[in-house]
Amino acid sequence: MSCPFHRPDGATRRGLLAAMGLAGAAGLARAAPLPSDRPPLTKTDALPADRTLPFFGAHQNGIATPIQAHTYFAAFDVVTDKRADVSALMQRWTEAADKLARGVEVGADADPGDSGETAGLPPSRLTLTFGFGPTLFSRDGQDRFGIGVHRPAALIDLPRFVGDQLVPARTGGDLSVQACGDDPMATMHAVRQLMRLAYGVATVRWVQTGFIPGFAAKATPRNLMGFKDGSFNVLTSDPVAMDRHVWVGDEGGAWMRGGSFAVVRPIRIALEHWDRMKLSFQEQTVGRRKDSGALIGAAQEFGPLNLDANDSDGNPVVAENAHVRLGAPQNNDGAQILRRAYSYDNGISMTAERWPPWHQGMELDAGLLFICYQRDPRRGFVKIFDRMSKFDMLNQFVTHVGGGLFACPGGVQAGRYLGQALFEA
Amino acid sequence: MSCPFHRPDGATRRGLLAAMGLAGAAGLARAAPLPSDRPPLTKTDALPADRTLPFFGAHQNGIATPIQAHTYFAAFDVVTDKRADVSALMQRWTEAADKLARGVEVGADADPGDSGETAGLPPSRLTLTFGFGPTLFSRDGQDRFGIGVHRPAALIDLPRFVGDQLVPARTGGDLSVQACGDDPMATMHAVRQLMRLAYGVATVRWVQTGFIPGFAAKATPRNLMGFKDGSFNVLTSDPVAMDRHVWVGDEGGAWMRGGSFAVVRPIRIALEHWDRMKLSFQEQTVGRRKDSGALIGAAQEFGPLNLDANDSDGNPVVAENAHVRLGAPQNNDGAQILRRAYSYDNGISMTAERWPPWHQGMELDAGLLFICYQRDPRRGFVKIFDRMSKFDMLNQFVTHVGGGLFACPGGVQAGRYLGQALFEA
Repeated sequence: MSCPFHRPDGATRRGLLAAMGLAGAAGLARAAPLPSDRPPLTKTDALPADRTLPFFGAHQNGIATPIQAHTYFAAFDVVTDKRADVSALMQRWTEAADKLARGVEVGADADPGDSGETAGLPPSRLTLTFGFGPTLFSRDGQDRFGIGVHRPAALIDLPRFVGDQLVPARTGGDLSVQACGDDPMATMHAVRQLMRLAYGVATVRWVQTGFIPGFAAKATPRNLMGFKDGSFNVLTSDPVAMDRHVWVGDEGGAWMRGGSFAVVRPIRIALEHWDRMKLSFQEQTVGRRKDSGALIGAAQEFGPLNLDANDSDGNPVVAENAHVRLGAPQNNDGAQILRRAYSYDNGISMTAERWPPWHQGMELDAGLLFICYQRDPRRGFVKIFDRMSKFDMLNQFVTHVGGGLFACPGGVQAGRYLGQALFEA
Repeated sequence: MSCPFHRPDGATRRGLLAAMGLAGAAGLARAAPLPSDRPPLTKTDALPADRTLPFFGAHQNGIATPIQAHTYFAAFDVVTDKRADVSALMQRWTEAADKLARGVEVGADADPGDSGETAGLPPSRLTLTFGFGPTLFSRDGQDRFGIGVHRPAALIDLPRFVGDQLVPARTGGDLSVQACGDDPMATMHAVRQLMRLAYGVATVRWVQTGFIPGFAAKATPRNLMGFKDGSFNVLTSDPVAMDRHVWVGDEGGAWMRGGSFAVVRPIRIALEHWDRMKLSFQEQTVGRRKDSGALIGAAQEFGPLNLDANDSDGNPVVAENAHVRLGAPQNNDGAQILRRAYSYDNGISMTAERWPPWHQGMELDAGLLFICYQRDPRRGFVKIFDRMSKFDMLNQFVTHVGGGLFACPGGVQAGRYLGQALFEA
């Protein structure tokens, strides 16, 4: 189906941008190509599903952990005004997280105890990654739990970005947990137990599940746009890169040392609309080939990100507003984030299309559960997405519908509890 | 949390039933125990995910097929009034179904063609099972496509059952497809291509995804209530039982020979409410032990369904209104259905509880995507559920929120198309 606004030729695309007053506005820096052959963050099929990833450790799992097949993300509102209630919940959650990761029943000494639907199921590489939202430290100017002084400077209130359509019921939260595992029953079960343990102290505010298709080990999984997603990422096996881009150092206070900041954004994709676009237009929008994942003009998925090449007419081979160009570190003062995105599928919902043929009806309510980790969101997601939100060609097809920023403390040592250094500071 | 209406002791439960005027009303037949050791319909982990299940064959796949890990069910409204448009769609869907099952791109000769997100993904034992709803044959008294005379007598308008809370937007449909496979990307991708091929002829009406946890081969998967689900089922390897209970013979017309009738019901479970119930009460409600799946009073999951035993006080060991008793064939004139149920997880939604503590807030929007196949729903689902809907103790925790009845034609031979014998009759 042809669409007058979306022609796959660069001239018309530039015309559209000119009409929007955006052409050339990006002022893209031209930095040196990146080192080649950086492996992506891939699902590691070689790892057996019955492998246990212990909850206790120097860092929280679920950040540098090879991505599991399923996630269940949940944000909670704290409904008590007593700090002791919150720290007691963190103790219950810590004890439960340790058991859940080991595949052990939670509340075996209580009746009712564990809801039991994972009895007999392997641990499924379950990880639980907890975070604290800005509102835990300050809400409506109130320091609710006397911990406001320990709020890290990097735990900002996320700015409003161009195009944001954040639904309040899917945005924010005082507490967060990202459950990842290789079985959807394991991840849902884990959050369900945490919800149960939070009765009277915290109520669930929003959740979003996600999945990664089962591609072969070391292959980059595709997202719902059909493109490989995560070809370029922080190399989790590189401790220097991880310290630079992902792990918090001393700047966040003792409780955040070794932690990281999670930005979570459910991004709805107009899939029916995208599916009507010709392949060449899709590729120019992303800046990569759909089949191979290679940068346009390059041969290999993991080759250098050479964004400087021009065609015989002097036009850039990778469009100026292509997704890959706007996200590239060399165009963002070297900024990098550890992407850990899942596809999500919420069925269908009533939708009015924003573009021809302006169809109204039931459309797929699906997209990307974008999750990324970084040492400082001001030099990570905010830095990269501020410009992307304005100029990325992909924005015609994607809408950020919710999300939040959460400070994920450093790892928990056995015998201590999650955020103890914060609540007992 | 204790609940005055839900005491785990039989006396109080019977008291509640007496108060509701239901005690003893079931008038349960006492038939002989069933043959023991019937294997359940289990997910067969031994089958590799890259196995291809061909679309063409004597029966449609996805009925007797060992259950895959994921499903994506979709119901469509036909928006044309031309029979030729519908039969042309069936031809496109047949061609696509054959390719999808083999992991081959749909529409490789078109631009845009296949959305491409499964490129590189194994076929994942994908099956597509198509059905025709009653409204395809007659809607508001109109024979829309001149096929009304071929409507099987068994393709009834489902009666309204006690407790039904069917949301119109999740109920009915002219066409249905059940996509099952071992990867959620494979099942979603398949339905997405079918949706795309239906542009202008049929629009999606409702969908529901589901999953089965990855239990070991031959183990019965648990549902979200924590109980093993499917311990008793039609034995798919028994051709006599399949012909008796599942496959349509000559009574449905040539186009239904070798087909089956699918009843699909998304059943929401009040999980937070269930999770507050003591273990013994849960077990008496279901009539089985949670851990082993054994009938109460029996030692083994697959032992005989001995429902006649009384305790020392003369009360039945398995409660008169226990789920297992109401569903047992000996209490339903021998009726059996081939259950093929998935758990579903739609996140959370605003909910007002129907029982103490009458909590209002965000609760899990999850439950069972109940799918069953049968030769005649009047002697299958309707027969069994009519009484169950009135008396089953489980009804305090479950609500049917949508669904439909679909006539699934016999298998398609290569060179022919789905429902050809109907549309060309």
